[in-house]
Amino acid sequence: MADKPSKGLADVVAASTALSDIDGQAGRLFYRGYDIHQLAGAATFEEIAYLLQRGSPPDAVELDSFRAEIAAGRTLGKLVVSGLAEISASQEPMEAMRTLLSLGSADDLDKSSNAPDANSRKAARLTAQQPMLVAAYDAARHGKESLPADPGLGIAANFLLQLRGAPPSPREAEILDICLVLHADHTMNASTFAARVCAATLSDMHSAVVAAIATLKGPLHGGANEQVMLGLEAMRADAADNPVAAAGRAVRERLGRGEKIMGFGHRVYKTEDPRATHLRQLSAELAEASGDDTYYRMSREMEEAVSAEKGLYPNVDFYAATVYHYLGIPTDLFTPVFSVSRMVGWTAHVMEQHADNRLIRPDSEYIGDRDLTWTALANR
Amino acid sequence: MADKPSKGLADVVAASTALSDIDGQAGRLFYRGYDIHQLAGAATFEEIAYLLQRGSPPDAVELDSFRAEIAAGRTLGKLVVSGLAEISASQEPMEAMRTLLSLGSADDLDKSSNAPDANSRKAARLTAQQPMLVAAYDAARHGKESLPADPGLGIAANFLLQLRGAPPSPREAEILDICLVLHADHTMNASTFAARVCAATLSDMHSAVVAAIATLKGPLHGGANEQVMLGLEAMRADAADNPVAAAGRAVRERLGRGEKIMGFGHRVYKTEDPRATHLRQLSAELAEASGDDTYYRMSREMEEAVSAEKGLYPNVDFYAATVYHYLGIPTDLFTPVFSVSRMVGWTAHVMEQHADNRLIRPDSEYIGDRDLTWTALANR
Repeated sequence: MADKPSKGLADVVAASTALSDIDGQAGRLFYRGYDIHQLAGAATFEEIAYLLQRGSPPDAVELDSFRAEIAAGRTLGKLVVSGLAEISASQEPMEAMRTLLSLGSADDLDKSSNAPDANSRKAARLTAQQPMLVAAYDAARHGKESLPADPGLGIAANFLLQLRGAPPSPREAEILDICLVLHADHTMNASTFAARVCAATLSDMHSAVVAAIATLKGPLHGGANEQVMLGLEAMRADAADNPVAAAGRAVRERLGRGEKIMGFGHRVYKTEDPRATHLRQLSAELAEASGDDTYYRMSREMEEAVSAEKGLYPNVDFYAATVYHYLGIPTDLFTPVFSVSRMVGWTAHVMEQHADNRLIRPDSEYIGDRDLTWTALANR
Repeated sequence: MADKPSKGLADVVAASTALSDIDGQAGRLFYRGYDIHQLAGAATFEEIAYLLQRGSPPDAVELDSFRAEIAAGRTLGKLVVSGLAEISASQEPMEAMRTLLSLGSADDLDKSSNAPDANSRKAARLTAQQPMLVAAYDAARHGKESLPADPGLGIAANFLLQLRGAPPSPREAEILDICLVLHADHTMNASTFAARVCAATLSDMHSAVVAAIATLKGPLHGGANEQVMLGLEAMRADAADNPVAAAGRAVRERLGRGEKIMGFGHRVYKTEDPRATHLRQLSAELAEASGDDTYYRMSREMEEAVSAEKGLYPNVDFYAATVYHYLGIPTDLFTPVFSVSRMVGWTAHVMEQHADNRLIRPDSEYIGDRDLTWTALANR
């Protein structure tokens, strides 16, 4: 028995996986053996979903069939639809995602089965429905219904269409698609680990992804991209005349006070997160196209300051923030958009856990009092 | 870095806690240093909730105030009440508990704060509301409203009143109260660990207990007590003339085929689970009072068979099943009743995690292909 705790389980191997691998020293990320640099821009999110959930890259026939399965799986459950108005009026985005995902199991035909084929169908439906939930939530909180899905569009293009109410440019859809590819899986991150802890009791896939979204909600995990954008907005509002220089100054001041800067550093990467490399490039491209590159230039200035002061690199959340901003996604939906992508990883990890299961039940170290004597209430 | 995985994290110390401690060799369980044998029958569930959530046994004034806080905290949220009919019609009990708990955050005044005082208030409200959710769900699926809560009754007595529609005998309420005491916390069990993984992203208490209930739902964890009862019912139906002898035979046959028997064995206890000792006794008492002790005698026969064949001991789920049955609790609500008690442990662990937090982010071992070359779709 281990005699001292590994706080946060850092460096403790909690599971075996064939889904993704990180080389933290070299700054490399692989999905089923393919380097993320090969995939970003070359593979669509649907191909990556198929790769992760079903084991190998689809051929043209398999991909057509999978895209059709995704399009058919988009229909939201009865309870989800009837609950949307009330939920969107009184729950924040990730709070609502947690509830809506939990409601969504009600009329899932496979809900009580953990068999591989049932799980595979559920994984495709959950992947199809997650962007629908985000768009429907956003419409409902504005008192509207979201546009009907376009069965001819892929996940990224259809999501932007529904969220913005008008078709995105082909390049905008492509950029969101790349973002979804980059966020799809990332070994034992906290939400994925929560999904596996849940699935390891042989609980069902919906339960596991509800646990995952509850975990992604935390500001130390999925909430970080939103915090990055809120920080940029606050700094810009404070220094409208020269926000770029002010951003660098603010970062140096905060680091001087020992504070952390959201969007920098990662427990696993010791060099640049390979996803950040792509997201920085995409942010630059969108910034230029938008005609106002202030947030991008502020981000660069912050990056230089953090690098100079602390030697830390931006993580996936830092440039994702401005990319989503330039794509017209409301800031409070950044974490739900993360969930649109990570749903692929969560569901694939649930399938992997169920295929070779053991209950995940660690030990704890007891640090409290010992051998106390209970006194009856009358004598206390 | 650890170089091989600890599958299921067995014997890996994942956290430090002052809440509970298990001595698996001696078969002892402690809550904040008090042996469970001292507490069962001597402390009420409310005292144990106070002990675990607030740090020490309450004196008479503190307990009165806490009981008043529980009584006042019973009111279910607006979204919960408006969703009950639809949810109870199309979600199974634990599926519905997951949804209802997630809905419940909507109008919680403290929902966005993880501060100790906010968490403490939320913990009391969640403890007050969980039995209300179970009773309201059961009433709603029968097309009824549950009885109003009686503010003069404690959690156990009020739950039996609402669930059965008539006041329980004092001894029945006391027996359920003891069951709730016995199930309140148990170190890093899977649902508690899921709650801590969630809370460690600085996600909120409602999210953490939603993750916990999603995890408790699995048949290897909370679902086991229901499986025990379903097994007893099936064996009795198959051998109505001599169910006791048949239960022993069936167990020996299943063990001979290498199958597991639900309700026996535990990863941590190497001797009898101290909770089982109390539950066996309570089951015997209720069986005798009921005038039909068949299920109890079947359970004893099963216990002897498993002991003789495998040397395994009953765990907490085995005799909890018949106790709940004799208390008139519907079999498919056994796991929700488990959650009524474990809510105390979950919320206390969330507070402990938030008080000294580090993100829980383990490593994984990669077992898949390496360095593959991505081929464009057209060439696949």
